[in-house]
Amino acid sequence: MEKISANDPTRRSWVDVPADSDFPIQNLPFGVFRTPSNPAPRLCTAIGNYVVDLAVMNYLTLFEELDIGNEVFNNRYLNDLMALGKARVRALRNRLAELFDERNEEARDLSWHFLHPMDKVELLLPVRVGDYTDFYSSLEHATNVGTMFRGPENALMPNWRHLPVGYHGRASSIIVSGTPIHRPLGQTLPEGAESPVFGPSRLMDFELEMAFVVGQSTELGRRVSTAEAEDYIFGLVLFNDWSARDIQKWEYVPLGPFLGKSFASTISPWVVTLDA
Amino acid sequence: MEKISANDPTRRSWVDVPADSDFPIQNLPFGVFRTPSNPAPRLCTAIGNYVVDLAVMNYLTLFEELDIGNEVFNNRYLNDLMALGKARVRALRNRLAELFDERNEEARDLSWHFLHPMDKVELLLPVRVGDYTDFYSSLEHATNVGTMFRGPENALMPNWRHLPVGYHGRASSIIVSGTPIHRPLGQTLPEGAESPVFGPSRLMDFELEMAFVVGQSTELGRRVSTAEAEDYIFGLVLFNDWSARDIQKWEYVPLGPFLGKSFASTISPWVVTLDA
Repeated sequence: MEKISANDPTRRSWVDVPADSDFPIQNLPFGVFRTPSNPAPRLCTAIGNYVVDLAVMNYLTLFEELDIGNEVFNNRYLNDLMALGKARVRALRNRLAELFDERNEEARDLSWHFLHPMDKVELLLPVRVGDYTDFYSSLEHATNVGTMFRGPENALMPNWRHLPVGYHGRASSIIVSGTPIHRPLGQTLPEGAESPVFGPSRLMDFELEMAFVVGQSTELGRRVSTAEAEDYIFGLVLFNDWSARDIQKWEYVPLGPFLGKSFASTISPWVVTLDA
Repeated sequence: MEKISANDPTRRSWVDVPADSDFPIQNLPFGVFRTPSNPAPRLCTAIGNYVVDLAVMNYLTLFEELDIGNEVFNNRYLNDLMALGKARVRALRNRLAELFDERNEEARDLSWHFLHPMDKVELLLPVRVGDYTDFYSSLEHATNVGTMFRGPENALMPNWRHLPVGYHGRASSIIVSGTPIHRPLGQTLPEGAESPVFGPSRLMDFELEMAFVVGQSTELGRRVSTAEAEDYIFGLVLFNDWSARDIQKWEYVPLGPFLGKSFASTISPWVVTLDA
């Protein structure tokens, strides 16, 4: 595998990075942000406790050799960046690591233009989601949820051991971490009742998941092999699959989870590239 | 209810419309098309056997009083038109009926600019689909499919009589009628077998459905009442929910239909407004 210079563990930055930071120079993620003084959404990365304005860095011609248009950085979503493909995104990340390297003076004096303290900005939903697929990927989780809905005898369905069991979720309900949500109303069948009742969910649950952002599209009907998969995955986000278990239990046979999970799904604002 | 002048049954057009046409002057639908001589997608309507270029009509200032920007008509999808809201789309449709009325000479001499024989154009997917939800809406269909998968005793699930049972489908697999599709490959459990096998589906099925295009968005967490529903529904399309029943049968418990229906879903190129 190609060596990725941005990941070099010996690299240090001229930006002050706390030892326990999620974003040392080796892990420069991608996101979208705005500031009170400039409400236009634009692309960013993070280093230590700073958010880095990539649109301004591009205006300052710091990415000149990469030849990425300003419209890619002055953008509400990462999608146009993702569509550039793995090689060009990797080159951008390598260039960022080079610019923030303590041995490089190119960008340091200009940094007041593009460094914002993280607590002074608003981080936005980073990607425009076309489709969202949720896989039932841990044996223990599948068994737990199955026990909740069908009892211990029928907890794990036979297909689980043979194929990745998944369903499509509601793409338009994906929101960025920290957004307040409403407790959903819906139909549930209380224990022992003969008829369902309508009201607020009493069994709200959350699931910590890891979500993969697919950044490049394919033609309908073309298969992507597992060997090619990494070329299509832009990066990863944290995902909270909020679930109203009482609504889900009553509605899910035979078409799967629907309203019990459609009211909100939360992702982290930072996309960590697969490279990192 | 407000009277919609475009629907006036006594209206006749100066365009020759066959008696059995789907698109008399009372049913002017919306779509997106392109022509061999101008491959830029743009909005259209239909009357008789003609496709009507709405972008050109707007350039010719025939919609002047409606004040809709050229960018709405010179568009790959109907979404920006839909976002104008019910009242403005209704005004456009009324104006079109007025312009095509046999008593009106305003547009007739200009018609060579915007009328194309339907067999000389390419009709495109008319809407950009954000989410696609499929409801299990006929008692007979739910019973038939249930019998196929679970036998006659468990055919209809108890929730069916209490709430609209539905699932999210794959929005990115929606294609326009006439597009060739690939027979899907997938895992199936043949009758009596102990382990699943991988291969082409042997039980391809189709379902004729009616799909509603929701043209306006809401804020997350805000409910739309049934009384308000018509303000959000732009129109209807025909929908073919292709299904690989053998793949579906093996995969669908407990998360619902997935790969057995994700390979393609076909819609008609014309959206008939709810007004019509």
